Amino acid sequence: MKSKKAIVLLSGGLDSSTCLGVAVKEHGSKNVHAVTVTYGQRHSKETCCAKDVADHYGVSLHTIDLTEIFAGANCSLLSDSQEDVPDGTYYEQIHDKGVSTYVPFRNGLMVAAIASKALSIDGDATWTVYLGVHSDDTAGDAYPDCSEEFVGAINNAVNIGTYGQVSVIAPFVGLHKSDIVKVGLEIGVPYELTWSCYKGGEKQCGKCATCIDRREAFRLNGATDPVPYEEQ
Amino acid sequence: MKSKKAIVLLSGGLDSSTCLGVAVKEHGSKNVHAVTVTYGQRHSKETCCAKDVADHYGVSLHTIDLTEIFAGANCSLLSDSQEDVPDGTYYEQIHDKGVSTYVPFRNGLMVAAIASKALSIDGDATWTVYLGVHSDDTAGDAYPDCSEEFVGAINNAVNIGTYGQVSVIAPFVGLHKSDIVKVGLEIGVPYELTWSCYKGGEKQCGKCATCIDRREAFRLNGATDPVPYEEQ
Repeated sequence: MKSKKAIVLLSGGLDSSTCLGVAVKEHGSKNVHAVTVTYGQRHSKETCCAKDVADHYGVSLHTIDLTEIFAGANCSLLSDSQEDVPDGTYYEQIHDKGVSTYVPFRNGLMVAAIASKALSIDGDATWTVYLGVHSDDTAGDAYPDCSEEFVGAINNAVNIGTYGQVSVIAPFVGLHKSDIVKVGLEIGVPYELTWSCYKGGEKQCGKCATCIDRREAFRLNGATDPVPYEEQ
Repeated sequence: MKSKKAIVLLSGGLDSSTCLGVAVKEHGSKNVHAVTVTYGQRHSKETCCAKDVADHYGVSLHTIDLTEIFAGANCSLLSDSQEDVPDGTYYEQIHDKGVSTYVPFRNGLMVAAIASKALSIDGDATWTVYLGVHSDDTAGDAYPDCSEEFVGAINNAVNIGTYGQVSVIAPFVGLHKSDIVKVGLEIGVPYELTWSCYKGGEKQCGKCATCIDRREAFRLNGATDPVPYEEQ
């Protein structure tokens, strides 16, 4: 019988770190691998956090560099962009001029890369790819490659293209960020090691869309984010 | 109105070069881009040919390097494999011990990479990704990521994940290699510039699965392959 393994897309942020916690709980750390992807982000804070979180769980961390593919993309998250990362919620941005933090088909490419990586690590195992997307990511259609429809579609493509050896799941796809924090607090995810802010300061800025969402998610659980913010 | 552009996965082989010819015929060379992917192949013959073919058509050629993703994969096509490229048809290999030339989810990853690349080149255009797979690729289930079912599934995922801006088509998916050569001879594809052999000799070997298929495809069209072979 083929062994069952899991591979988690780990950015070092809140969602993917919780996803890793869930995967380890379900598969045991020796059957779990994590992959962090660099794609020309403005800062390397997240990738450092990915390493700390992977070490915490005792899983192997692989790095994939997709920077050259996104060269020239007009996205404020990328270091060669002329545009600053905007402040305010996603909702405000969409109703202003569209989400400038959309990285073209990023999740599709990362899932495909991880499917290939999984079978390159062990071509005899069956693999589950864990993706930490959630329903707030698709609010107002901000990121189409985070939707439940997208997860179903990419799972189908990956499954067909790998002789059925690789599947893709997104355990939080129907949940809000506050639900994810609830799960994470229950299973003891080391949130003090994570980083979510789009900017690369000493502390999380507290003003960008992801900071606003993150703080609110802890607040809704009656908890305080262990990671400090510039703006209290 | 958004401008319509095409991007072609170009290996420098027979199928993808014909695909480029078709895309240029349909979109005009100034609206077509080509992408060649390196993934740790044993030789660089194909990538050189991709450049020659792109130059012939006057289209921009982009290169994407996915080598590190496949590091460790057990595939005889890759340069770090211990295994030799087998001789004989795919049919013989499948009935022997499986196709050792399967590169894990290669087409899925390459399509995803090209979708991201297309929107990085021009995020305002609508794009069609051209993929040169054909029905012989899936004979006996050799390459599941070349099937019609797969093309439909990855098109669906790409479409959803890009706000509908990118589609994937495989104009030859129901055809045999000989049908592709027929199309290519009609529209004047410069086959003398292409390379299909899995091995990287001075001439095409004439013995590996892809050489056998290629020669036969010309023969069925009453034509002779302009590229010379070791074994006549």
